[in-house]
Amino acid sequence: MPLTLYDFALSGNCHKVRLLLSFLDVSYTKIPTSVKNGETRTPEFLRINPFGQVPVLVEGDLTIRDSLAILVYLVRKYANADNQHWLPAAPAEMAQVLSWVAVGNGAVQDSIATLRKHYFLGAQVDKPALESKSYDLLGIFDQHLAQQRWLASASPTIADIACFPYIALAGDAQLSLDKFGNVRRWLRDFQKLKGYVSMAGMPEF
Amino acid sequence: MPLTLYDFALSGNCHKVRLLLSFLDVSYTKIPTSVKNGETRTPEFLRINPFGQVPVLVEGDLTIRDSLAILVYLVRKYANADNQHWLPAAPAEMAQVLSWVAVGNGAVQDSIATLRKHYFLGAQVDKPALESKSYDLLGIFDQHLAQQRWLASASPTIADIACFPYIALAGDAQLSLDKFGNVRRWLRDFQKLKGYVSMAGMPEF
Repeated sequence: MPLTLYDFALSGNCHKVRLLLSFLDVSYTKIPTSVKNGETRTPEFLRINPFGQVPVLVEGDLTIRDSLAILVYLVRKYANADNQHWLPAAPAEMAQVLSWVAVGNGAVQDSIATLRKHYFLGAQVDKPALESKSYDLLGIFDQHLAQQRWLASASPTIADIACFPYIALAGDAQLSLDKFGNVRRWLRDFQKLKGYVSMAGMPEF
Repeated sequence: MPLTLYDFALSGNCHKVRLLLSFLDVSYTKIPTSVKNGETRTPEFLRINPFGQVPVLVEGDLTIRDSLAILVYLVRKYANADNQHWLPAAPAEMAQVLSWVAVGNGAVQDSIATLRKHYFLGAQVDKPALESKSYDLLGIFDQHLAQQRWLASASPTIADIACFPYIALAGDAQLSLDKFGNVRRWLRDFQKLKGYVSMAGMPEF
C-alpha cells in the first residue's frame, strides 16, 4: 500500500518522519502542506487531522497523526532485522527510547522549537524565559551525551531522530551550541548515518 | 523485582501511572515527592531524573522517567492476555493509541494542565489564551467521543489513561465540562472500570 506524508519542508517534526523513512529506505509520496500559509487549518485538512498539524501519514484506510505515533508505526511495520535498533522491542529498552522521544516532542518543543517559531512565524513568546529554558535543556543533553554516544541505546534510535531536528536548528532560534561540545559531536555523528537527509537551512556539524 | 514510584499525589501525570498499576494489579511502593515543596529540584532527585519531574519508576537497576515511557513499559512487561488491550502490539493499533497518548501528554498538558498549574502553583500564564485553547481541545475530544466509546480502540487503552486525569480535573482549571456531554460520558465510563482509583479532589462523573 503506498505511503503518503502530509509534509511541511520547514517543520522539524516532519523532518523526523522524513529521516526515518530514509533510514528504513521506505518510499513515499509527499503532499506539501504549508503551516505558514494556513494549509493545516483548512476544513479539508482538519478532516484529516482535527488538531491541524503536520506530519500526517496515510496508508490506505489508515491515517496516523503525530510524529511519535508515526515513528513507532514505521519501525514496527517496516524495520527488518538490520534496523530494529531504531526501536528495540524489549520493554526496558523500548521505555528508555520513548522517554527520550518524549523529551524531543515535549521539552525540546516547548523551548528551542517554540523560540524558532517565534523567529519564523512571529509567535508571541517570553523570549528570555525560553532562552534560559533552552540552555538548561541543552546542558542536560550535553551532560548525558558526555557519557554515551546515542541518547537511549548503544545504537541510534527514534529518540535521536525525535531530538535531532530542533537541536540542529538551534541557530534558527538564535541559540548558540558553542558551549555544548558533546551535543555537537552527537549532531555530527547523526549526520554521518547512512541514509541521513538534511533539510533546507540546516547547518552541517 | 519490587517497583518503586516517585509520586506526587496531586500530579495528573503520576495519577496516570497509579491508574495503570491498579488496572494491571501490580503492587508497588510510593515515594511521596512534592512538586510544590521543591522535592523534584533537589540535587538527589536530579540525579534520578535530570529533568526534575515526577513520575519516575524504579525497578532494580532500571530507572524510567516520563509517563508515556512508564505506561508503555508496564503494559509490555506486566500485561497478561486479559489486559493486553491497554496497548495493542499490532503496528496500526499501537500507533493510534500512541497518537492519543501524545495528545494527553502534549495538547492537554499545554492547555488544561497548565491552567490548573496556574491556579495551584501560581505559574504565570496567558489565561484567556489558555482557556480558549482548552475549550477548543475539549471540543475535539467531544466530537471524537461522539463516534466511539474509547479514544483509540474498541477497548480502553493507555490513550484513555493519558488523557483522563487533567480532563477530569478541568474544574481545578476553572473550566466547565457542561457543554461536552460525550466527554462526560467517557469520564463516567472510565471511572466505572474495574480497578479504577481516584485521586484527591477529583469529582465523580
